[in-house]
Amino acid sequence: MTDAGASKPNAPIVSVLMGSDSDLPKMKDCLDTLAEFGIAFEVDVISAHRTPGRAHDFATAAEQRGIRVIIAAAGGAAHLAGVLASLTTLPVIGVPISSSALHGLDALYATVQMPPGVPVATVGVDASKNAAILAAQILATADSNLHDRLKAYKARMADAVAEKSQKLKRNLGLQ
Amino acid sequence: MTDAGASKPNAPIVSVLMGSDSDLPKMKDCLDTLAEFGIAFEVDVISAHRTPGRAHDFATAAEQRGIRVIIAAAGGAAHLAGVLASLTTLPVIGVPISSSALHGLDALYATVQMPPGVPVATVGVDASKNAAILAAQILATADSNLHDRLKAYKARMADAVAEKSQKLKRNLGLQ
Amino acid sequence: MTDAGASKPNAPIVSVLMGSDSDLPKMKDCLDTLAEFGIAFEVDVISAHRTPGRAHDFATAAEQRGIRVIIAAAGGAAHLAGVLASLTTLPVIGVPISSSALHGLDALYATVQMPPGVPVATVGVDASKNAAILAAQILATADSNLHDRLKAYKARMADAVAEKSQKLKRNLGLQ
Amino acid sequence: MTDAGASKPNAPIVSVLMGSDSDLPKMKDCLDTLAEFGIAFEVDVISAHRTPGRAHDFATAAEQRGIRVIIAAAGGAAHLAGVLASLTTLPVIGVPISSSALHGLDALYATVQMPPGVPVATVGVDASKNAAILAAQILATADSNLHDRLKAYKARMADAVAEKSQKLKRNLGLQ
Amino acid sequence: MTDAGASKPNAPIVSVLMGSDSDLPKMKDCLDTLAEFGIAFEVDVISAHRTPGRAHDFATAAEQRGIRVIIAAAGGAAHLAGVLASLTTLPVIGVPISSSALHGLDALYATVQMPPGVPVATVGVDASKNAAILAAQILATADSNLHDRLKAYKARMADAVAEKSQKLKRNLGLQ
Amino acid sequence: MTDAGASKPNAPIVSVLMGSDSDLPKMKDCLDTLAEFGIAFEVDVISAHRTPGRAHDFATAAEQRGIRVIIAAAGGAAHLAGVLASLTTLPVIGVPISSSALHGLDALYATVQMPPGVPVATVGVDASKNAAILAAQILATADSNLHDRLKAYKARMADAVAEKSQKLKRNLGLQ
Amino acid sequence: MTDAGASKPNAPIVSVLMGSDSDLPKMKDCLDTLAEFGIAFEVDVISAHRTPGRAHDFATAAEQRGIRVIIAAAGGAAHLAGVLASLTTLPVIGVPISSSALHGLDALYATVQMPPGVPVATVGVDASKNAAILAAQILATADSNLHDRLKAYKARMADAVAEKSQKLKRNLGLQ
Amino acid sequence: MTDAGASKPNAPIVSVLMGSDSDLPKMKDCLDTLAEFGIAFEVDVISAHRTPGRAHDFATAAEQRGIRVIIAAAGGAAHLAGVLASLTTLPVIGVPISSSALHGLDALYATVQMPPGVPVATVGVDASKNAAILAAQILATADSNLHDRLKAYKARMADAVAEKSQKLKRNLGLQ
Repeated sequence: MTDAGASKPNAPIVSVLMGSDSDLPKMKDCLDTLAEFGIAFEVDVISAHRTPGRAHDFATAAEQRGIRVIIAAAGGAAHLAGVLASLTTLPVIGVPISSSALHGLDALYATVQMPPGVPVATVGVDASKNAAILAAQILATADSNLHDRLKAYKARMADAVAEKSQKLKRNLGLQ
Repeated sequence: MTDAGASKPNAPIVSVLMGSDSDLPKMKDCLDTLAEFGIAFEVDVISAHRTPGRAHDFATAAEQRGIRVIIAAAGGAAHLAGVLASLTTLPVIGVPISSSALHGLDALYATVQMPPGVPVATVGVDASKNAAILAAQILATADSNLHDRLKAYKARMADAVAEKSQKLKRNLGLQ
Repeated sequence: MTDAGASKPNAPIVSVLMGSDSDLPKMKDCLDTLAEFGIAFEVDVISAHRTPGRAHDFATAAEQRGIRVIIAAAGGAAHLAGVLASLTTLPVIGVPISSSALHGLDALYATVQMPPGVPVATVGVDASKNAAILAAQILATADSNLHDRLKAYKARMADAVAEKSQKLKRNLGLQ
Repeated sequence: MTDAGASKPNAPIVSVLMGSDSDLPKMKDCLDTLAEFGIAFEVDVISAHRTPGRAHDFATAAEQRGIRVIIAAAGGAAHLAGVLASLTTLPVIGVPISSSALHGLDALYATVQMPPGVPVATVGVDASKNAAILAAQILATADSNLHDRLKAYKARMADAVAEKSQKLKRNLGLQ
Repeated sequence: MTDAGASKPNAPIVSVLMGSDSDLPKMKDCLDTLAEFGIAFEVDVISAHRTPGRAHDFATAAEQRGIRVIIAAAGGAAHLAGVLASLTTLPVIGVPISSSALHGLDALYATVQMPPGVPVATVGVDASKNAAILAAQILATADSNLHDRLKAYKARMADAVAEKSQKLKRNLGLQ
Repeated sequence: MTDAGASKPNAPIVSVLMGSDSDLPKMKDCLDTLAEFGIAFEVDVISAHRTPGRAHDFATAAEQRGIRVIIAAAGGAAHLAGVLASLTTLPVIGVPISSSALHGLDALYATVQMPPGVPVATVGVDASKNAAILAAQILATADSNLHDRLKAYKARMADAVAEKSQKLKRNLGLQ
Repeated sequence: MTDAGASKPNAPIVSVLMGSDSDLPKMKDCLDTLAEFGIAFEVDVISAHRTPGRAHDFATAAEQRGIRVIIAAAGGAAHLAGVLASLTTLPVIGVPISSSALHGLDALYATVQMPPGVPVATVGVDASKNAAILAAQILATADSNLHDRLKAYKARMADAVAEKSQKLKRNLGLQ
Repeated sequence: MTDAGASKPNAPIVSVLMGSDSDLPKMKDCLDTLAEFGIAFEVDVISAHRTPGRAHDFATAAEQRGIRVIIAAAGGAAHLAGVLASLTTLPVIGVPISSSALHGLDALYATVQMPPGVPVATVGVDASKNAAILAAQILATADSNLHDRLKAYKARMADAVAEKSQKLKRNLGLQ
């Protein structure tokens, strides 16, 4: 078993797609986290509704190009993740974006409530960091190196909370 | 100006699509109403997620085949209407179906909250009859015969309510 | 078949109505888009609740004046589109406006959940641009010139997304 | 000051309107309660959307005919109460009916979220009995006899709960 | 029949209560509108939960003091209107205030969903002006003078919208 | 420290109140669980809205009578728990009941969203068993015997799930 | 019976936990109110999801360390209160925090809708002051001194509202 | 690369956990679909709240036992998936179950709205079949045999819809 992320540094294995370039600020955490895990990724703006042809071409070619997990972020009637999932058997992670008046409820429902046969692995509204970690977890099922990095990440996360705990107690004069 | 529905009785000008054959009972009113208006229509089951290829082929060919209005019904993360709207400039009427645990709210949001540039003309949850009437109204903008039938329909509808009013008063002994 | 929008430049064929003049900023996109398509339109402030008489007069005379599609925007218990739809057989497009504490959910429900027989073609909350495009699509069912402009618009929209895709990749140093 | 309900037994002072005759079972409590208070009422089926003309005629004539309070029940995009309120200065009581897939939320929002200037006195979803009592309370502001009956009703209601309390304790063997 | 508002200028006939003094800015429209109609009113801060004794004393004495309509505004689990309605047979108008994280939905449900026997005449979220107009409409059922002022108000309101219509058309260069 | 529940078997220390006797079936689990813990309780039907006087008398006297925890169940605009909490400093546990068209959302919001100063300890919609356990937990803060029974209950609960786990595996032939 | 809060000033009897240190500003009222009641408390940041080990260790040791009530605040899929409640029989008070795009609805549901057997005493969204008062009420069931302080607090609260009432009337020139 | 599911038929690589045995009927589709894909799985009933110890033991040992994907189904304040995700770096798929009065909205929010760092791959309410397919997609990123079966499954699914399309047209006499 090889370390997928490390062995081919230039060939992306995760695709991060957004329905609009205005989603980029909310997707920044995702890109940073993938980089932190050393996972090679690509980024693109593809709209399920405004560029259906490109969405189709992307989804049908992704696997051949070596992509193993797709992350798709969209707001409103968020169809991007679902459209991609309809065209590939790769795992598709959906990130509902809170860009409309309905503050993400529409995107959440449109992303998660997929019909039997075509799942989208949905994370929380605007939860782009979690999309990256989920992608890492999926890849780590066959990448022991990445798996170790995930375990280290989890430990660091616990330490960070513990540190905040100490700091808060000091600030409140409770310790 | 010709009567679109009457002049080519066998060539459908409205397409009624459902995401699942289980939506048929809820779409029956739509078919009956189109028939009542003498509008030639076709019916098909096309899933945006399970048969994306057929959805694509349908949408790109519909106009050439003479279709002038598309009605698309789907439940859950209801993408059918949106997928079709992304592939054609024909008016697409969306009918959100209440088939999931969220009783149609998911389908309503996924149908109506389309991004700028790709509208879906959404009617109420399960409101398949209204989809038919809206299709008729759209066609009637260029079909004076159908326009007259719509006016007559509206008058009959008012009469039917008036009759119910009389009947209710009689039954309650108020008249 | 003639180009409806171009042939009579001064005679409006689309009416854009708002329940309140405070809705104008949200409806600006609608007016700009109609203009972009070369569709002659008129604008008015008519309140279903505060000027019911004018709403009635407008709806019953619209058709005679040559109006072929009505766009109605309102917030809260948004009845404007429904009231107009009850009085005409012209297609009525409803734009729910997010002006209340319930951020548009009330307007969405009040616009889309019409009773059998009286449809309103509802677009997303505050989605005034889509109302214009839907009006264009409806008119284009009998206007090949407008139809071509819609196809061109769709192509430009796809190109714009593709451009943003290139720009985003350059900015992220991914290309 | 005279007893409005008793003095002219045949001239209705309260109008109970429904958007559809299918709302009658849910409005039965309203009619029974008005009768219990001795308030002369009339009942009719008028649809804001299917019979806008009759709604208009009713609202503009109601006051002249001696109607002093209007009760309007409707489901879905429930516009009936709002349409009537736009045409009269009589108090209009709205009863949202849970007849759609959205189980009355749509009717509640469409009834209560009226724009500044045109109130509808909204009661709970399907709460037709409360509409009758509210009508009685409004009339009782100028009818001491009815006022006394309301006080007696309130006392009986308290007694009924107290009785149920006794019965429940007996049944549970707690007394 | 006497003009209730004008005949005893100093004796309030409408009580405007708020659950918290922080609701005052949202209730300003209510007070201004009552003043505009020449209705004598009083204002107080009474919390159903923090001053239950004062709520009780107020409600049981209101009628004797000549109050004929109560307006109660509260946010969150808005019980003020309901508590007062449980203690008096006067009409109680409830104004749900959007002061919590749930932006008024909690207040709306807590105000409108009263049990059978104890209605609250609910207006829209933060719709304090409508509470005043509804109070005027209720009082006007027995006050022809006030009734005339309501009719004049309705006419002015329609004129104001018509003026805005003219202004908007001029600004857009459409007239 | 004494065992509150066991030492005075006849003097109730928990009051279980319902807004309506129709809530009894949903509150059965609460009564059974209190009995299972050997906690002396009383049951009553008191409506915040229909019997405000009895609610007041109950709340102000409860403490003197030895009541230490109050459980209040109500549906719709569920004010019972809040009204009691406004009148006593005893802990009040609220059980929102799903009796209305809004299936308990109204009751949940009306119970939990109390203003600063007057908390209601809210459990889930219809979660009457949890109200009993919470009451037991509160009493157990000063009752070591009851505390032991709670620990035993928690252990039995875990065992019951473990048993179901075994049974399910056997039934599926997975063990 | 001893005054729990006063007798061991340095040994905390209430634990206030937050899922994230970013919740501190919203929990400030809770800490201040506990201090106002003279209740010894401790504060910590423990994440159910990021530091599950610490959550487990805390919950299983809390009782032995003398903690008698736990207050747990968290946003999003707020599991902190539930996780603690699953590991202890101490009363756990949950404070849903409005930190996500769903403005606290997610936290409210995730906190209050606990399964049978494991209650969380839920207060309103962001209602941290009420969590402190509820903790005081629970402790006061066995602490007459604290009980008196709660009564005094309730009286002061009523006085404060009465004062605001006077001030508001003066400011409006109504007194 | 080996076919994970086929090579060790008896060693489960997917764990399907339910919060309650009453969730089994809704999870049947999941088990059947895993079997259809030839994926070895285990089933268990583990409650995050009633058996936290077993949840902890399961999550910390799962990876060592060869489990590569966890599927967790729960209703109400559905914490099971989140608790497991907090204790392992394996991908955890969450299935919100519609078992409460809030018909799955509570479970959806409690499952999907996880904090940064701890994702749960959420599928639709009651969408247990999609959980199985998503598990297969995840495993297939490193199992070409399973990957082929997924492609075949997708093709069969499209064929099934096409067949239904033919059958529906025949039944409607449209072909």
